[in-house]
Formats: sequence, structure tokens, C-alpha cells
Amino acid sequence: MTESTKKAVVLLSGGLDSATVLAMAIDQGYECHVLSFDYGQRSRTELNAARAVATALGVRDHRVIRLNLEDFGGSALTDTSIEVPEQEEEGVIPVTYVPARNTVFLSLALGLAEVLEARAIFIGVNAVDYSGYPDCRPAFIAAFEQTANLATRAGVSGQHFHIETPLMKMTKAEIIAEGMRLGLDYGLTVSCYQADDDGRACGVCDSCRLRAKGFVDAGVPDPTRYQRVTRNA
Amino acid sequence: MTESTKKAVVLLSGGLDSATVLAMAIDQGYECHVLSFDYGQRSRTELNAARAVATALGVRDHRVIRLNLEDFGGSALTDTSIEVPEQEEEGVIPVTYVPARNTVFLSLALGLAEVLEARAIFIGVNAVDYSGYPDCRPAFIAAFEQTANLATRAGVSGQHFHIETPLMKMTKAEIIAEGMRLGLDYGLTVSCYQADDDGRACGVCDSCRLRAKGFVDAGVPDPTRYQRVTRNA
Repeated sequence: MTESTKKAVVLLSGGLDSATVLAMAIDQGYECHVLSFDYGQRSRTELNAARAVATALGVRDHRVIRLNLEDFGGSALTDTSIEVPEQEEEGVIPVTYVPARNTVFLSLALGLAEVLEARAIFIGVNAVDYSGYPDCRPAFIAAFEQTANLATRAGVSGQHFHIETPLMKMTKAEIIAEGMRLGLDYGLTVSCYQADDDGRACGVCDSCRLRAKGFVDAGVPDPTRYQRVTRNA
Repeated sequence: MTESTKKAVVLLSGGLDSATVLAMAIDQGYECHVLSFDYGQRSRTELNAARAVATALGVRDHRVIRLNLEDFGGSALTDTSIEVPEQEEEGVIPVTYVPARNTVFLSLALGLAEVLEARAIFIGVNAVDYSGYPDCRPAFIAAFEQTANLATRAGVSGQHFHIETPLMKMTKAEIIAEGMRLGLDYGLTVSCYQADDDGRACGVCDSCRLRAKGFVDAGVPDPTRYQRVTRNA
């Protein structure tokens, strides 16, 4: 038997969702080539978390692409003049939205996938707990997949790219349960928008609150390391 | 009258086509925000040409995004172990193809457009003299535009992005004639895949040959500066 290796490019932020996606891709038998981005986000500790997760899961390789999106501005995650809100408003796209982020990340993953002859690209988008980002919806993913297959040499040759979104319809609690089943150590991951240099979470931002609720709902002890709040010390 | 400013993001490589696109966008009354990429291409002089063109045309601003695509490999334009061919084979996607390049460039242009509230993105793709790149075809552009409008806050709000490809159906000679009409100095542009540090062209690569033929067909003197070939000096 000469079955060829199943290769995948996996987008890894260092957060809970993308770490679970990586564990799932490995569980499905893919040789995983991991891609992370250093785009001037406040949370540089996310990248340290991504490296720790990639190492713990023994991936084939891990590339970090530096993108100087600070020049663009427009998001609380990259523009230090905008304050990260503690609670997002309902029904409004949050200020933590980074313009065209998933389009940019998927495009670069596509370029790498074409070079490596990987036909699967995994991304941890989620339509349930998705915080209102337009580029996390199934319609966006389907449109990107179509674009990818028109954009590339491989697509033109009929070897289709698939954008794999295994978390799309899962709740945070279901995601956590799946990661626990696969032996993932969530203590390595960082979800906080404003974690400190040691990777400790603020506990109050939108991302922290969603994550903490997920552990509660999954009935799993929360391994997140939180910053200590000292009052009138 | 309080007509709002028409803003556009214009992708500029420093080559003949994208310089013409920029001149056309300005002629159409757009306030132009120019975006170039430093992606480890051999032809760094392209970026110097882009700066010269942007300055000569008096654009609003010019951003250069650094992308370390060398790590990806897979193209003669970024991988120094692959030789640039003098003539591409017919009907074959050339080795100078950079994986997913226009998808990546358009994605970053989209991010910038969203921040600036520009609704037009100009790119100098061409289906006539397009050298066999899949991401220069109308079907690709249409798919990307659809993706852009699903990906973004603006698209969701019904303010559509348009990918403008004014060169799509023009021959190289027609492009040159249009640029000349708009007063563009093509001596500032560099199209060569292996120009020297002073921006002088090799005269033999696929891009040089297409460009030289364009000037001949347009009946316009070729302002390109070529490298001198010395034999048995």
C-alpha cells in the first residue's frame, strides 16, 4: 500500500479553540504543519502559548509569520489607543474585531498548503460562541473555499482544497470536552485579550468570560491561570 | 455639497501594469491609499520603483507590508534555488507563480480598506497577457469579491467592496497607450523578474519580453533601462 500522507495546515493562535482543532486534526491522522501570526496583537503571550501547544502535540513544523498590521489600526487588539471592553454589546460587531483577519490568515495558510501539497486547512472558527465576527460564519468559509480553488494551481488541476472547521457548531463546553478526551492540556492555552507576560488571564474580558463559562458548563476544573487583583494593598 | 471622498486602496508592485492602474484610479477621482509588499522577492528594486511611482503620482499614503514568505518556498521569485526561466512553456503555470499571492495581497488590501472606509480595491490583473497565473482570472476576482463582502463588518452592513480590475481585458499595448495618455513615466517602473540593484532589466525573462513587445505594439519608444551584456570584453 502506498497511501500518501494526509497533510494539513493548521492555524494556531494559542487559544483554547485552535489548540483543540490541532488536537482533532492530529487525531484524524493528518501530518500537521502549524501556522501562527505575530500581527502586533497586545497578547504576545498568545504566541508563547502557541509554541507550547505545538511542541506538546509534536507537530511536524510550526511557522510564525510576522505581519505589521499595527499600521492599519482599527481594532482594540492591535491599536493601543482603544480600550479593551469588559463586556461586548449584544448584536454589535465588537471593537476587538481585526479587519479581514481570517481572510488574511486563510490566504497565507492557502499559500503554504499549496507549497506543501496539503489539501486541508484547519481553522477554529465557531458560529455558536463566535462573539459576532463576520468572518467566522459558514457562508464566509464556503466563499473562501471557492476562492481558494479558483486561486491556485492545485485548485485549477482539480485537487480541491478543503477548509476544515470542526468547531463550527460546537458549544464552548463541547469543545472543551473533546479536547479533554484527546488529552489536551488547556493550561498551556491563553484566550485572554490582555494576558500578562506570564500568560495569566485578566478574567474579565469577553474572551475570558466565554472560556470560564465553558469549563463550568463542561463540568471540568478551569486550568486557567488568572492575574491576582490586589485592592488597597 | 457634502459629497464624501471616494477612497481606494491600490495594490502597487512597481511594475508597468500596477502603475497604470494607479494612474487610472487617480484619473477616476479616487483618493488613493497605496499598498506594496516586501515578500522576499529577488527583485527588491521593484519596491524602489513602487516608491518612485507613488511619489511621482502624489498619492495620499504608501504602506509597505513585509511578509516573510521565503519560509514557504515554491516559487522562482522567492526561492533562490530555482532558476528564473527565459521563456515559460505554453499552457503550463509558470514556476514564477507565487502560491496564493493575489489572494494574500487582496486580503491585506481588504483589511486596510475596511479600516480606511475605502470601498474600492484596485489590482492590475490581466487576463490577456496574464502569463498563466490562475489568480488573475475574472472568476477568481468575482469569488474574492464575494468572500470580501461576507468577511467584513462593512460587507455585512451592506456597504459593498468592489475589486476593480481595469486592465482585465486590455492588451499590453492598450495598457501602455492608456498610461501614456495619463502622463505616466514608464521609465520609473520595473517589470523584470531579475532587475539589478539600479532597476535595470535583464531583457530576456518572460516579463521583459511581454513588456518590450507592448511598447513595440503601442508604437511608443521603450523607456526601459536594460542591463548591458558584455561579451569577451
